[in-house]
Amino acid sequence: MAKIPFQIEIIGFVAAILTTASFVPQVYKIWKTKSAQGVSLSMFLIFFTGVSLWFFYGVLLGSFAMIIANTITGILALMIVYFKFKYK
Amino acid sequence: MAKIPFQIEIIGFVAAILTTASFVPQVYKIWKTKSAQGVSLSMFLIFFTGVSLWFFYGVLLGSFAMIIANTITGILALMIVYFKFKYK
Repeated sequence: MAKIPFQIEIIGFVAAILTTASFVPQVYKIWKTKSAQGVSLSMFLIFFTGVSLWFFYGVLLGSFAMIIANTITGILALMIVYFKFKYK
Repeated sequence: MAKIPFQIEIIGFVAAILTTASFVPQVYKIWKTKSAQGVSLSMFLIFFTGVSLWFFYGVLLGSFAMIIANTITGILALMIVYFKFKYK
């Protein structure tokens, strides 16, 4: 497992904050409108599986940015799936 | 730039296929219903910026899986932003 230079890891962490944060407005919108009709369930189920694999890829590469980003994004994607069933 | 072992890269490629493919049903749903109301514009704008940074992170790590995944995901996210303006 290679040690990733700090300068590169910073870019990964900013990317992680942005792609993770981008799910917050979606979760908030569904919660506020009590509707998940416009959101595709299949998208979020496939997405969650992919995010889980990116997590393992991050572990194998020793990328803390990928590990943290995909953990939080996975939790948010699961929340959207939960809302989809609750508010359909 | 470290060479990533083939076995690890395979996991990244499967992850790439899944997270990229997860956007296709969303794009199709918006196109079919001619409505992007349930999709958050702020989500996709922040997401696109994050995906661009993951692309650079992938370039710096020498990860072809990340480069390809984030190129295609970025294009699909831009398509959703376009539909959001077209179909609002």
